[in-house]
Amino acid sequence: MTTLLTRRHLFGPGPSNCYPQATEALGRPVLGHLDPDFITILDSACDSLRTVWGTNNARTLPLSATGSAGMEAAFVNTVSPGNIAVIAVNGLFGERMCEVARRCGAEVIRVDHDWGTPIDTERVLQAHPSPKVIAAVHAETSTGVLSDISELGTGKGDALLIIDAVTSLGGIEVMADEWGIDIGYSGTQKCLGVPPGLSPFTVSERAFDERVKDPRSWYLDIGLLGGYVGAAQGTSRTYHHTAPVAMIASLEAGLRRILDEGLNNVWARHEAAGRALREGLENMGLQLFAQEGSRLPSLTTVRVPDSVDSARVRRHLMEKFSIEIGAGVGRYADSLWRIGTMGPNARPDSVELVLGALEDGLRRSAENP
Amino acid sequence: MTTLLTRRHLFGPGPSNCYPQATEALGRPVLGHLDPDFITILDSACDSLRTVWGTNNARTLPLSATGSAGMEAAFVNTVSPGNIAVIAVNGLFGERMCEVARRCGAEVIRVDHDWGTPIDTERVLQAHPSPKVIAAVHAETSTGVLSDISELGTGKGDALLIIDAVTSLGGIEVMADEWGIDIGYSGTQKCLGVPPGLSPFTVSERAFDERVKDPRSWYLDIGLLGGYVGAAQGTSRTYHHTAPVAMIASLEAGLRRILDEGLNNVWARHEAAGRALREGLENMGLQLFAQEGSRLPSLTTVRVPDSVDSARVRRHLMEKFSIEIGAGVGRYADSLWRIGTMGPNARPDSVELVLGALEDGLRRSAENP
Repeated sequence: MTTLLTRRHLFGPGPSNCYPQATEALGRPVLGHLDPDFITILDSACDSLRTVWGTNNARTLPLSATGSAGMEAAFVNTVSPGNIAVIAVNGLFGERMCEVARRCGAEVIRVDHDWGTPIDTERVLQAHPSPKVIAAVHAETSTGVLSDISELGTGKGDALLIIDAVTSLGGIEVMADEWGIDIGYSGTQKCLGVPPGLSPFTVSERAFDERVKDPRSWYLDIGLLGGYVGAAQGTSRTYHHTAPVAMIASLEAGLRRILDEGLNNVWARHEAAGRALREGLENMGLQLFAQEGSRLPSLTTVRVPDSVDSARVRRHLMEKFSIEIGAGVGRYADSLWRIGTMGPNARPDSVELVLGALEDGLRRSAENP
Repeated sequence: MTTLLTRRHLFGPGPSNCYPQATEALGRPVLGHLDPDFITILDSACDSLRTVWGTNNARTLPLSATGSAGMEAAFVNTVSPGNIAVIAVNGLFGERMCEVARRCGAEVIRVDHDWGTPIDTERVLQAHPSPKVIAAVHAETSTGVLSDISELGTGKGDALLIIDAVTSLGGIEVMADEWGIDIGYSGTQKCLGVPPGLSPFTVSERAFDERVKDPRSWYLDIGLLGGYVGAAQGTSRTYHHTAPVAMIASLEAGLRRILDEGLNNVWARHEAAGRALREGLENMGLQLFAQEGSRLPSLTTVRVPDSVDSARVRRHLMEKFSIEIGAGVGRYADSLWRIGTMGPNARPDSVELVLGALEDGLRRSAENP
C-alpha cells in the first residue's frame, strides 16, 4: 500500500507526474457543481482549453471521463449506422478508433501504416471519395510517432476531421482551427500534467451542426452537454450530470500553470527534453524506434537490445529508483521501451535521471545476463 | 474564483462535503495505473465496495466516470435493440433511465408513480410477463424517496434487476446479493463522501454471463473492463484505459474511513441525522414532501412555503453562511428544497447548522417579503 512517502518518477506513456498546482487544487474543499465559484473555475478551464487547442470553438470542455471516452464521444456524436469512417491506423490508438467507430455502426475503412511511421496523408485522403469522418492520431502513444494533421484538414473536403491529441495537447503545438480539426479529444494525464480522469474535448460549429441528433450515448451526447457548459455562456445552465468538480479544479490549475509559463515556452521545453533524451539514448548505443523526423518530443520509443530482458530492467528502475518507464504494446511489448518526458517531467534534470537510471539498468543486465 | 479560504457546507443533493481522508488521498503523488502499489489500492477499493454493496460479485469496481455513466453502463451491457425494459419511474432518475434505455434500443415499459411516493412493487412486476430487465431507483435524489428493492428481487423471475443506488450507497443499507440486484451503480459524491467522478458498480455472475457481447459502448463494456479489474484476480491485467488513479485513491480512502467506523454505525448516523433534520423542519412548521415511511435519511425534501421565494432563501444561505441546499427538480423546481445530510454531514452539528440557517433565511424572508 502506498504511503505519503511513496513518490514515483512517472516516465512511462502516462500518467505523468502532475504539476504541483494541479495537485494542490485537487485537495481544495469541494464546491457544488452549480456553485457560482465552481462555474467560474469551469469557465476558466474551458477558456484555457481553447488556448491550448488553438481554437475559438464555443464547445470546448473537459468531458467527465478519461481520454478513451473522448474517443468514444468523437464517434458517437458524428457517426450513424452505415456512415463511412476513414481511419488512419499507425498504432494502437488508431486500431482502437476502428473498434469504437465500428460499435457506433460505422463502415470503417482502415488505412494501415507500419507502426513507427507517420500517417501518409495522400493515402488517407484517397481512401474514399466522400467519407462522413476522417480520423487520425496526432501523437501515437503506442509508437512515439508524430503525424502532420494540417494536410488532412486541407484535403478533408466535406468530411469531419477527428483528431486524437492525447499525447500532444499542452506539450506540442496543436492548432485545431488552423489545421481544420472538427473534433479533438485528449487526456489530462500526459503533457497537461494533471491526474487522469477528464478528456479535454473540442467541437467545431460545423461538427456540432452536423452531429448525430439522437446519439446512442446519453452520457456523451454533446447536444445535451452544451446546456451545462460551452456554448451556453450567458444563458442559464441546465443540469446534465454532476461535474467531477475536484478534477476540473485540478485541470483549471494545471492549465493556468501552463499558460503562465507560456505555451511557446512549454512546447520548447518539451522539444528540448525530447531531443536531449533521444541524444542520450543514442549516445548509449540504443536505437530509436519512431521514424526520424516524426519523433514525438513528449514520448520516446527505443528498442530493447536483443540480449536484454525488458521487464527485468523496468523492474530494476522501479525498485531501485522508483522510476516507471513503459513497455511496448502489442507485438512490440517486449522489444520496446516507451519513455515519457511530459508536463513537469519535460526538464533537463528528469532526462538526466532517467538516462542515468537506464544506463545503470543496462549495466546490471550486462553483468548478470 | 475560489481560494483556499472558500469552504462550502454542501447540504444539497450532492456533491456532499468529503471525508478528510478522501481529500487527503486525492493530493498524494500520482502512481502509474499499472504500478503494483496502485493495483493494491484498486483491489482494496473493490474489496471495500463489495462490503458496502453487500455482495460477493467478483465484478465490483469503480467505473471511470460519474454516476450517470453507471446508469448508461447498466443498460448498454444488458439491453439489445428490441429487448423489453420495465422501468419504475417515481422521479427524475427513473425518467432518465427510460431515456438511456431507449437509446440502447430497448422497448421501454414505464411504470409511472406520483413523485414523492415509493415504487409499487406489484405494478412493476405485473407490467410485463418476461422483460429482459427491470430497473428502479433505490433512493430518488429528485424526491427524497426510498423504495423497497428486495421485493423486486424476489419477484423478478428471469429478468435482470438494475438498481440506482446513487443516493443510498454508503449511507443506507444496500444488500445487493440478498435483494437480488444484478447490476447496481452509484456515485462517489453522496453518502460515500468522496468527490464526484467515479461510479461504483457491481455486476452479478448471471448478468455478466447474459451480458450484451458486443455492446455499443467500448468505454463501458464490462466484458473488456473485467480484464483490468474485478474478475481477473490472480491473472495478468489487461490495459483497457488509463484508470483515474487519484480519484480511485480517494475512493479507497473514503471507503476505508467508512468501514473503520463500521457500516452499521454509518447507517445509524445517517438515520439519526435524517430524523433530526425532519423533526427540526416540522418544528419550524414546514411540510415534508416525500411520503411518510419512505423518507430518505440522506436527503430530505421539504415544501417551500407559498409566500417564500425559494431562490432568494437559497441565495441568502449561500451568501451569509456559505451553505448550499438544493432546489427542487422539474415542476417542483421552485416549490421544494432538497437538503442532504450525507457522508461527513450526517452529524448533529451539521443538522443544527442547516436548520439554524434556514430559520434565519425564513425569518428574513418574512421581514422583507
